[in-house]
Amino acid sequence: MTDSVGFIGLGIMGAPMVQNLLGAGFDVTVWNRTTSRTDAAAQAGATAADSPAAVAAASDVTISCVTASADVEGVLVGGDGLPPGAIVGVQAGSVVIDMSTISPAVTRDIAALLAEKNVQLLDAPISGGEQGAIDGTLSIMVGGDADALERVRPILDAMGGKITHCGPSGSGQTVKLCNQIAVSVNNFAMAEALVFCQASGVDPSTMLEAISAGAAGSWQISNLGQRIVDRDFAPGFKVGLQQKDLRLALEAADELHLPLAGTSMVHQLFAAVERESGPDVGTQALVNALEALAGVTVGGD
Amino acid sequence: MTDSVGFIGLGIMGAPMVQNLLGAGFDVTVWNRTTSRTDAAAQAGATAADSPAAVAAASDVTISCVTASADVEGVLVGGDGLPPGAIVGVQAGSVVIDMSTISPAVTRDIAALLAEKNVQLLDAPISGGEQGAIDGTLSIMVGGDADALERVRPILDAMGGKITHCGPSGSGQTVKLCNQIAVSVNNFAMAEALVFCQASGVDPSTMLEAISAGAAGSWQISNLGQRIVDRDFAPGFKVGLQQKDLRLALEAADELHLPLAGTSMVHQLFAAVERESGPDVGTQALVNALEALAGVTVGGD
Amino acid sequence: MTDSVGFIGLGIMGAPMVQNLLGAGFDVTVWNRTTSRTDAAAQAGATAADSPAAVAAASDVTISCVTASADVEGVLVGGDGLPPGAIVGVQAGSVVIDMSTISPAVTRDIAALLAEKNVQLLDAPISGGEQGAIDGTLSIMVGGDADALERVRPILDAMGGKITHCGPSGSGQTVKLCNQIAVSVNNFAMAEALVFCQASGVDPSTMLEAISAGAAGSWQISNLGQRIVDRDFAPGFKVGLQQKDLRLALEAADELHLPLAGTSMVHQLFAAVERESGPDVGTQALVNALEALAGVTVGGD
Amino acid sequence: MTDSVGFIGLGIMGAPMVQNLLGAGFDVTVWNRTTSRTDAAAQAGATAADSPAAVAAASDVTISCVTASADVEGVLVGGDGLPPGAIVGVQAGSVVIDMSTISPAVTRDIAALLAEKNVQLLDAPISGGEQGAIDGTLSIMVGGDADALERVRPILDAMGGKITHCGPSGSGQTVKLCNQIAVSVNNFAMAEALVFCQASGVDPSTMLEAISAGAAGSWQISNLGQRIVDRDFAPGFKVGLQQKDLRLALEAADELHLPLAGTSMVHQLFAAVERESGPDVGTQALVNALEALAGVTVGGD
Repeated sequence: MTDSVGFIGLGIMGAPMVQNLLGAGFDVTVWNRTTSRTDAAAQAGATAADSPAAVAAASDVTISCVTASADVEGVLVGGDGLPPGAIVGVQAGSVVIDMSTISPAVTRDIAALLAEKNVQLLDAPISGGEQGAIDGTLSIMVGGDADALERVRPILDAMGGKITHCGPSGSGQTVKLCNQIAVSVNNFAMAEALVFCQASGVDPSTMLEAISAGAAGSWQISNLGQRIVDRDFAPGFKVGLQQKDLRLALEAADELHLPLAGTSMVHQLFAAVERESGPDVGTQALVNALEALAGVTVGGD
Repeated sequence: MTDSVGFIGLGIMGAPMVQNLLGAGFDVTVWNRTTSRTDAAAQAGATAADSPAAVAAASDVTISCVTASADVEGVLVGGDGLPPGAIVGVQAGSVVIDMSTISPAVTRDIAALLAEKNVQLLDAPISGGEQGAIDGTLSIMVGGDADALERVRPILDAMGGKITHCGPSGSGQTVKLCNQIAVSVNNFAMAEALVFCQASGVDPSTMLEAISAGAAGSWQISNLGQRIVDRDFAPGFKVGLQQKDLRLALEAADELHLPLAGTSMVHQLFAAVERESGPDVGTQALVNALEALAGVTVGGD
Repeated sequence: MTDSVGFIGLGIMGAPMVQNLLGAGFDVTVWNRTTSRTDAAAQAGATAADSPAAVAAASDVTISCVTASADVEGVLVGGDGLPPGAIVGVQAGSVVIDMSTISPAVTRDIAALLAEKNVQLLDAPISGGEQGAIDGTLSIMVGGDADALERVRPILDAMGGKITHCGPSGSGQTVKLCNQIAVSVNNFAMAEALVFCQASGVDPSTMLEAISAGAAGSWQISNLGQRIVDRDFAPGFKVGLQQKDLRLALEAADELHLPLAGTSMVHQLFAAVERESGPDVGTQALVNALEALAGVTVGGD
Repeated sequence: MTDSVGFIGLGIMGAPMVQNLLGAGFDVTVWNRTTSRTDAAAQAGATAADSPAAVAAASDVTISCVTASADVEGVLVGGDGLPPGAIVGVQAGSVVIDMSTISPAVTRDIAALLAEKNVQLLDAPISGGEQGAIDGTLSIMVGGDADALERVRPILDAMGGKITHCGPSGSGQTVKLCNQIAVSVNNFAMAEALVFCQASGVDPSTMLEAISAGAAGSWQISNLGQRIVDRDFAPGFKVGLQQKDLRLALEAADELHLPLAGTSMVHQLFAAVERESGPDVGTQALVNALEALAGVTVGGD
């Protein structure tokens, strides 16, 4: 018998993920903070519940996909002025999957609370962006109990392509933060190469063409380099969300007394970008901070 | 009629490049500072000359492939206590190709000297490493006159896979420096992600497996990440040479009054690596500097 | 008539500050989380109360001097499992002075809560260290209402030397964070000069003697430089507390979307120091992180 | 009998230093690259010579005070197209004092050349700026033979206040570079504190007043902080010269395989300042790079 699935958080990522769950034949109960976003899911066959607790009560497996650590605590545990959290309704023996990107430490705290109810928490943050969510090709990095992962794997398969079991509770979050560290510093590498190229008077598109396939290559260069030259700063991934994730990485490192000199520098530069262009600009706008210091415009004259 | 080719500099890169030229049917005259290295080339059919000037006198196209700006000046222009430079013997109307990685400014200075002799200089630095030199699949980034490039393209085709015309004299060097900026900062990204992963108690191989195919992916991560976990610091590319190239980038940026904060930080960290492990360790040893500060060993317990 | 003074927090700083208030003739009521620390104050004439609320109820002016933002919220506002906060007992028309170093934003939040009770909050963080607290020569950076400051000035005069009105609520905290930014980056300057000197084979004491009185001079160099050469890392100010303050500065900057590249780098380096030597080592141990990378020991052979 | 003194280099520093030597009763022979600058010295009683060699031939002690390593090599050793260097005319048993700020390694090379002529070289770089040169209160950091220093001490006393013997040849240069490291990173500390203060909405003059006398204090803050608030970027010391000195420090560190992360970051930021404002702006303009990233103007609204 197929598990019934609850889904909390119908944002840019959550909404298409629910569509993929419905498409795979799962019964899905949903809740979102702003109720207007539940309509599309309901039209596609999902059942709308009136609280996270109600979602959990109706589901064998409950998924949360919201933004920050406090949001996950809000929908899974609850809080002042919030509707009852999933923990209030959750069934003993069920599994909760948090697909948000949050602090590994907060993940472990919530896992401990749910364990008291005999509920397993898997942390399962995702990468692949909106397009990956629509296509059902997300990378899913899973921390927590291996048996629980096996149980919910068909559900994750409906949403993702690559599913990696990273280790015990919090490990998925740690790997996601590693991902964000590498993404951001690779982005910085691209930006610095482009600004140097432009300031040296060489055509940056030619440079990208010459170096992308070799040892200097990266997903960032292949996917975002030419967009910078074309002055296209529309978001694949937004600076405001990137900064949230870098904050998580830096805070986790701070607790470990671990220096992250590169990540920290990129976080500082993104601050200037967010001040100038707001949180919704694409992460490739990191180059704008370097351009401001260098007095050049990549792709300009 | 096929051009005759001169080749100055039979190092790790130059020696297999000459073999490929011979294999493609070119007549090749060679010179190397330490004459013992000319034997293998001579046995394969090359003619040994006794100076760069003699190489140039015997060749329609003269190639230099040595280490630093001063070395290129030495073999192409000459200097106190050195054998006569190529410029002494070079034929009017011939082409000189410098495949070393050196300063764009020095490149332009030498090009101006050769132009007085009615000789075109192409700067054509390479990437792809020793294996690429052996396989004849080097990436070649070419600056200088487009017609001169077309004339020598069959020669470059014998040594390389991807050949990109980057613009006027010096542009090939600029693009090579962009390549080294991106290589180095991507390397830093990988190192920081690995150290964070290890310090967080998550298996770094699992992390690499989870993130390499997505937005965090890079040639560095795919080719060097697992080698770090396996504590294999044998060189693909050596720290000492990487530092030479980063020095070129930082000096070029300094002349342009251009900040390169990321490249500069990586250059500082590599200094600690070179002090500890010498110039011949592989560039993936960058992680060792971060490990020293973090008190962890990636792949350790 | 002299104001009666309440004092919450009898730590390394608070205890001698209370002694100075008693010495100046003020009636002082005290509370501390660990009650054993109230004994010395009581023997010197202070009255021990059993909660922050009781302190406030007994006092015209209530002072808090604790560690972090959460501690200030705990003693001034209260919280789960805590004794009643000062706000419960505070008299309308009285003044509360928070001499802790905390977030400017949290300061303003608490000020708003107290204003509802017709109570002025002054933020008045201090610098000068334990010795300054003992000697009554602390620098006090005051934010909040100017008239409230005038009213309590005799109380502050009993504890401090230099008292500066910095502006509205939170301004004292902002200036204290500026102080900590400058302290930390000056410390970094000293550390880098010392490591360069040592690695260059020049006697670091001679260097300090030569440069301290000129344009390179700083309080850090004059007071901590020779202690580094002597390998004396006993705390004037502790790394753990310094990191708490840098975290406040970086978080405040993050909210303002303001890059703090230097402060951020020092915070990263201090992380390595705290991991290696714990939170109680003196801030001059920053040099240890640079020594680890440089492979030298300042003052060693 | 008083030594006769030769002085090569009548720039902003050298010209008033010669006046002080004349004022102290020394016979002074001078040479400058641009001869117009010798007139003032000649009017004050100096004798103009027509080459550095002629200066040295006429003098018991020969001083050079020029800009860069190459300039010192030019006037002391000579070179293509240059007038004969001091070494051509220098008397055996005499002393040469180089008061320029140059590479410790180049200093040692020149010292070795002069030693072959039985001439001692002292490296004696200075700090204190134009005003210190006029007032005769320069700090002089001396490397080389201690007996040679004692012999020339009356000459140095005529120009300087504090004279420190730093160790063997090159040590004076090393200490001067330590000075420049500390000067520059302290400058960065001040700039970052000011930008944070301004962005936080607190009056920066008040902040400077509050913190300058304590643990955050530095010569930079006391002498340049208020000038930044007043938007006075006239040079005490020029960015272009500061960059020259930081280049020397970074190159010396590079040869030692020594990371200088802070100095390197400041050097990168100064690059942006020099691009925007030219080499002749005062070093306090470092703040302009931070202001560009932060979107604030210290002292503005």
